[in-house]
Amino acid sequence: MQRKIRIGIAGYGNLGKGVEMAIAQSPDMELVGVFSRRNPADVQLLDSNIPVHAQNDIAQFRDQIDVLILCGGSKNDLPEQGPALAAMFNIVDSFDTHATIPEYHAAMDSAAKPAGYTAMISVGWDPGLFSLNRLYGEAILPVGATYTFWGKGLSQGHSDAVRRVPGVKAGVQYTLPAEAAIERVRNGELPELATREKHKRECYVVLADGADAKEVEQNIVSMPHYFADYDTTVNFISEQELRRDHAAMPHGGVVIRSGTSDAGTTQVMEYTLKLGSNPEFTAAVLVAYARATWRLNQSGVIGAQTVLDVAPGLLSPKSGAELRKELL
Amino acid sequence: MQRKIRIGIAGYGNLGKGVEMAIAQSPDMELVGVFSRRNPADVQLLDSNIPVHAQNDIAQFRDQIDVLILCGGSKNDLPEQGPALAAMFNIVDSFDTHATIPEYHAAMDSAAKPAGYTAMISVGWDPGLFSLNRLYGEAILPVGATYTFWGKGLSQGHSDAVRRVPGVKAGVQYTLPAEAAIERVRNGELPELATREKHKRECYVVLADGADAKEVEQNIVSMPHYFADYDTTVNFISEQELRRDHAAMPHGGVVIRSGTSDAGTTQVMEYTLKLGSNPEFTAAVLVAYARATWRLNQSGVIGAQTVLDVAPGLLSPKSGAELRKELL
Repeated sequence: MQRKIRIGIAGYGNLGKGVEMAIAQSPDMELVGVFSRRNPADVQLLDSNIPVHAQNDIAQFRDQIDVLILCGGSKNDLPEQGPALAAMFNIVDSFDTHATIPEYHAAMDSAAKPAGYTAMISVGWDPGLFSLNRLYGEAILPVGATYTFWGKGLSQGHSDAVRRVPGVKAGVQYTLPAEAAIERVRNGELPELATREKHKRECYVVLADGADAKEVEQNIVSMPHYFADYDTTVNFISEQELRRDHAAMPHGGVVIRSGTSDAGTTQVMEYTLKLGSNPEFTAAVLVAYARATWRLNQSGVIGAQTVLDVAPGLLSPKSGAELRKELL
Repeated sequence: MQRKIRIGIAGYGNLGKGVEMAIAQSPDMELVGVFSRRNPADVQLLDSNIPVHAQNDIAQFRDQIDVLILCGGSKNDLPEQGPALAAMFNIVDSFDTHATIPEYHAAMDSAAKPAGYTAMISVGWDPGLFSLNRLYGEAILPVGATYTFWGKGLSQGHSDAVRRVPGVKAGVQYTLPAEAAIERVRNGELPELATREKHKRECYVVLADGADAKEVEQNIVSMPHYFADYDTTVNFISEQELRRDHAAMPHGGVVIRSGTSDAGTTQVMEYTLKLGSNPEFTAAVLVAYARATWRLNQSGVIGAQTVLDVAPGLLSPKSGAELRKELL
């Protein structure tokens, strides 16, 4: 029996809490500690036996952690934290600013490789499992088109972006897919759909005292990568309404590859997620990839990696022989 | 510019023809020849410029083929051909007798490894892409249940099995899913479903002259692995009816993982294929995995491999940097 994989969590918001839950469902892993920028005494874990440490002390734990799971946000936390921590630990993160992934990959590779660590970046469901399905789709059906629709769901990354706008006290963002567009794709029509035709974005925002609503709205809807290319509506609500009506964090979506063989036959591959909790699911993906990250590092694969680089079998605690017998 | 990957096809039935089509859609590959047990002059390819050779002469082509795609059947062809050819070529096959995959894997590994070749076995959609989704499902949501439903569709493997029963001149087999069972799974009910509750099997059979219908029916419905565990009906029809009503080869199915987080939240992952042509799609998967097989062999990974061992990025002709930029 191999010893358990020792996991650390950096950042304890919804995602960090989800990681704690997912580790509790993984008998081959143990959570050795949570690191927070808050006062450790103020951080309440689900399991009170797990220690909480100050983020600033993390370097002292290099020998006690096999894989550190970074649970900060992509906009402000990870670009800074990621490379610093990748030089000290094997890490897994959920960096999800699609447009800057190549740049982030390069920074993480430069940090991790010289130190002999493995940095598994952009893990989750999109980027992550949806990326995999886009890849399987176009590699297997090279003649065709790939479509991704999200929602209806609350997006962590986009809600985080909203909350970082000056004048926003609290808020959430929902992504809504256009069902009519999905039906056209399923029917093999191969429609050309503009970004704006596929989804809408809805924000529910609590203003900070004295903030200017018009200015906040303008700063949200014009934000590049996140909102500028969509029809975005911003609704201002009270803190009470936010707590009452927007506490759940469901999400989901679908990736569809519609292709044709050389004989003109239509083939459709469709991947759907219906998630009761987006952060809990993203966390579950992070934890499975933490297992793969540790194995890759042990076998000498270092530097920045993504889900596209990970053989699926590495995600499972089962042996190759067990997987072939049970799953093939 | 790297030279093209040189592919050979062993066996030219529906699957072999599908492979020829899929290679025509893959600019980084070239089909260097087809090998057949029939008289080569009688084998008509889609592209008449591709040479057809006698299967018996295949050893002469060891230096001209990077990956040989085996397009024989799992019941009689591959168990014999597979190990013999894996000692002479990198191969990809679609061995799909689930119960004997571990044994076949061992035989292929013993043949390929000492010769320095890579043998990618059991590729297609089930086993294959469905296996991958079963794996991603249980690795990410360890607390839950996985369900696979097939059809409605014509199954190549099962039709092949029917046709090998003595007294059967020709025939096809359809797999039908139980829609009510699928709905229960989608609703998160986690039902316990017996094999018999999930699908039915329907055979349409043309009897050979003088064959005994009762005996043929009994031999089909009692066949282990293929029919014994299902409600199987056998319909005897004329050759004319078979040609008229059963020429298309659609198939498909769905893999669903229904799981719960440690907080009790329901998460559902669903993978659906709707295939106009089962052999053309299986062939497309084989060709994408031929690309990965060649790369693995070039990087020193030899012996028997399955889809569970293949990093997704290896399936695409694009570079890692292109994939990260376009698909993550």
